[in-house]
Amino acid sequence: MKQCSSLPVIVVGTGGVARSLVHSLKLNNIRIIGVITRGGREAEEYISEQGLAAISYGAKITDPCVCVLSVPDRLVAETAQKIALPEGSVMLHTAGSIDMSELKCSSINYGVLYPLQTLHKLKQVSFKDITVCIESNNSFTKSVLTELANTLSDNVVEISSSQRLMIHLAAVFACNFTNFMYSISENILRDSNLDFSLLHSLIKETTEKALHTSPSLSQTGPAVRNDLNTINKHLSLLADSEKHIYEILTEIIRDKYGKK
Amino acid sequence: MKQCSSLPVIVVGTGGVARSLVHSLKLNNIRIIGVITRGGREAEEYISEQGLAAISYGAKITDPCVCVLSVPDRLVAETAQKIALPEGSVMLHTAGSIDMSELKCSSINYGVLYPLQTLHKLKQVSFKDITVCIESNNSFTKSVLTELANTLSDNVVEISSSQRLMIHLAAVFACNFTNFMYSISENILRDSNLDFSLLHSLIKETTEKALHTSPSLSQTGPAVRNDLNTINKHLSLLADSEKHIYEILTEIIRDKYGKK
Repeated sequence: MKQCSSLPVIVVGTGGVARSLVHSLKLNNIRIIGVITRGGREAEEYISEQGLAAISYGAKITDPCVCVLSVPDRLVAETAQKIALPEGSVMLHTAGSIDMSELKCSSINYGVLYPLQTLHKLKQVSFKDITVCIESNNSFTKSVLTELANTLSDNVVEISSSQRLMIHLAAVFACNFTNFMYSISENILRDSNLDFSLLHSLIKETTEKALHTSPSLSQTGPAVRNDLNTINKHLSLLADSEKHIYEILTEIIRDKYGKK
Repeated sequence: MKQCSSLPVIVVGTGGVARSLVHSLKLNNIRIIGVITRGGREAEEYISEQGLAAISYGAKITDPCVCVLSVPDRLVAETAQKIALPEGSVMLHTAGSIDMSELKCSSINYGVLYPLQTLHKLKQVSFKDITVCIESNNSFTKSVLTELANTLSDNVVEISSSQRLMIHLAAVFACNFTNFMYSISENILRDSNLDFSLLHSLIKETTEKALHTSPSLSQTGPAVRNDLNTINKHLSLLADSEKHIYEILTEIIRDKYGKK
């Protein structure tokens, strides 16, 4: 079994990432000093359910710790500066799009622990199979962070801030936009009194192919075949925003595959 | 074990659907009379490799059979009319976007056997786990087709032409456009010297969620959070067509989720 990180952890926030982080820390017996929040009933209920200590922003932190900021990306820098950590501590954030340097005024030791996953309040998952991207400003942070990350996950990679931003951007396409395509699909079927589960085997196969071959090489569909009959038939069935999406994507796929 | 269909089968075409159909017919010991093609080296090689008879369009077909047209959607009607089937035969097509009625001049008995899957020449798969949508013009066709489809697949559903067209449209979003999102993602990472496999666990989880909950309810990302900082940062990193896609999808997601 992996060793636990030697420093205890403070978690800041109670959103999707924070909750899965708490879940993963507990699974690995890493001590959690407490959770810092701005309060609110939902956050307080969660902290109490978890048997954790609620820490206010003004509270004095006495023990060296790893403080992990899981707050909205735009709040990372200002939140970090509200928390005074004792010497020997490390300040981390978990945001995909925020440069590590935004923590430089908040601690001598700082870095990033970015779980590359879509995480929700309502589904706490272990970091074990999640790719965790880490970055650190000095060797002390690196050793603490590497130990912590390797305890939590089997897939830890060192990634610079600029690369992390590109990963985050790529993840928007591969996760958020992909999910939006599924939801359009679901709505089209629902409007025809058909169940989304009809597409389950197609969705599984599409994903399998993307994981095992290059998606650029395995593009199928009316756009890549330049099948104008089908494209026009489909367009006539769509209204407004979905039609616009279909047109744009079809045009760009046809351009890319040279069959326009 | 399921019974085999009582009529032997002629397959028309040697594309992705045709090849997986041949594979599935063989797996279930259904007799294949032969394959009708316009010829060409690749088609002939395939037919020979499979140990099948090549049948020309003009050839006289003597035995009652199920003739399955797996040709490009736009060629279904004209191809059907080139083939004269003996009495007691059934003409089927496998196209998502073509109305069953396009076969009405080609045979007394006609219908549709539409495998709801992305199929490639290079990967012959069994229809067993694929949803197969069937439609038939009379009770004889229905009994022959139902027996054949149930022999090939464990997921057979009766679907009208108009519903099938909506399924085909939904499949473009859930498969073709989704795959295109993956390929953009792959390109973004490649340009930063990063491997697409970094996103594998994210892609798996996104798919799992879509299969087990409603994608409309589980949308995440900067667009649904209306995180303008991140959106603008991402837009500044994209060029041309990818930027356009990002803008359009973000705008529509923000509209739909009411956070614009």
